[in-house]
Amino acid sequence: MKKLLFLLILGGLGSRPLHAQSKPVMSATTSASPKYIRTATGFLMVLRQGDNVLQELEQLAIREKIPSASLTGLGFRHPTFGFWNAQTKEYAPKSFSDTEMASLTGSIAWKDGKPALHLHGVATDKNFTAYGGHLLALEVGTGSMELTITTHPQRLERLVDERNGATVLGL
Amino acid sequence: MKKLLFLLILGGLGSRPLHAQSKPVMSATTSASPKYIRTATGFLMVLRQGDNVLQELEQLAIREKIPSASLTGLGFRHPTFGFWNAQTKEYAPKSFSDTEMASLTGSIAWKDGKPALHLHGVATDKNFTAYGGHLLALEVGTGSMELTITTHPQRLERLVDERNGATVLGL
Amino acid sequence: MKKLLFLLILGGLGSRPLHAQSKPVMSATTSASPKYIRTATGFLMVLRQGDNVLQELEQLAIREKIPSASLTGLGFRHPTFGFWNAQTKEYAPKSFSDTEMASLTGSIAWKDGKPALHLHGVATDKNFTAYGGHLLALEVGTGSMELTITTHPQRLERLVDERNGATVLGL
Repeated sequence: MKKLLFLLILGGLGSRPLHAQSKPVMSATTSASPKYIRTATGFLMVLRQGDNVLQELEQLAIREKIPSASLTGLGFRHPTFGFWNAQTKEYAPKSFSDTEMASLTGSIAWKDGKPALHLHGVATDKNFTAYGGHLLALEVGTGSMELTITTHPQRLERLVDERNGATVLGL
Repeated sequence: MKKLLFLLILGGLGSRPLHAQSKPVMSATTSASPKYIRTATGFLMVLRQGDNVLQELEQLAIREKIPSASLTGLGFRHPTFGFWNAQTKEYAPKSFSDTEMASLTGSIAWKDGKPALHLHGVATDKNFTAYGGHLLALEVGTGSMELTITTHPQRLERLVDERNGATVLGL
Repeated sequence: MKKLLFLLILGGLGSRPLHAQSKPVMSATTSASPKYIRTATGFLMVLRQGDNVLQELEQLAIREKIPSASLTGLGFRHPTFGFWNAQTKEYAPKSFSDTEMASLTGSIAWKDGKPALHLHGVATDKNFTAYGGHLLALEVGTGSMELTITTHPQRLERLVDERNGATVLGL
């Protein structure tokens, strides 16, 4: 039921219209605080319980017309990792709940006119054991998620490396 | 005894008067090298054996009047992690010794007029097994700790999210 | 055989003359994409299957005359970690294959006129188990490696801390 409610909230987020750039972007769950601010090197984003990290980053890229960016982050949430199978060219997924994100590293670029994220993370559980890998999905849990985005001036596209089928960042 | 000596050194550090900004800030253990320098994007800090990472970052925030910042780091040390219990609103702590800090990610903000740090880390032991989470304490071991601090122009405060009791970064 | 071929490719990379700064630096394996671009805060480097990460970073430092830098990264590859033994002053090494690099953190400085890297990483395998530590070697696997380098204006040298024999970054 809690999960269902959560998905409904996410669905609502996904279908809302994009705000104009000049309007402060408010959190879905608190009206007091915007979701991100512009900094000297890019953007600082703070997401809260119920937010979908990948979706928020994609909306940031579109709204602020970010040509490309690198990012780091930390937080508390429910990650889904996928391990790249070089033979099948697919990711084998696995989800974790209520873990700290001890580290998040990634980049923002574009593919087919849409934002294309690449995120890797390390999640740690209540025994402080660490898991991690390529992030397929990421929902903020009972806490927050802080993301530091460093923007770059060049519009970058993700390409497929013909040798191994992997998607790589084209420079 | 070694531990006691260590605590005495830390106590000495904690009570020393703050230096003026223009004076180079020397390491407690070597007079040849300052503890940090100003860079194009913020500060680069290098801590050595016996230094208390959280205390040094707090002193940096006060001395340099950092409105807010994001940071990354690496090093060798003795971390204490805490896992957030959403029910009790407390961190269950656990300490590790002689681990590499394979990754450190965090932010600097303010709360009640004092620096408020948020640090997550991944520690790895001699078998290269990884542990991690929210950092409650952090002492530099037989090596060093390098911290890259990216400063932001906005003064940011940490707030409590009423929904889950977690402290979050207010934008 | 594959390993041998790989070493031959690396050997070829190692002995090639340094290009002039103005010439785009092409990947060993794809002629369409340069290996790095200059950004607002430093450089963004993308390495591909077969590239040697440490060697490429050293060549970047030399070619672009980087005084010092901090870096973060993510990718897919074959890391060799070493755990520092404070008694013997040596690193006990261990290699892993086909792991994601969930996190890479490091710095570029100089020692004896040559680039001196300090890299820590967290690798995760197909079960999402995390390993990590000090990186002694790093080859890109069937995927890519994205590195974000933030440059600093000061030329920094690595020094030996007399108290514990560890190499530390001098400020």
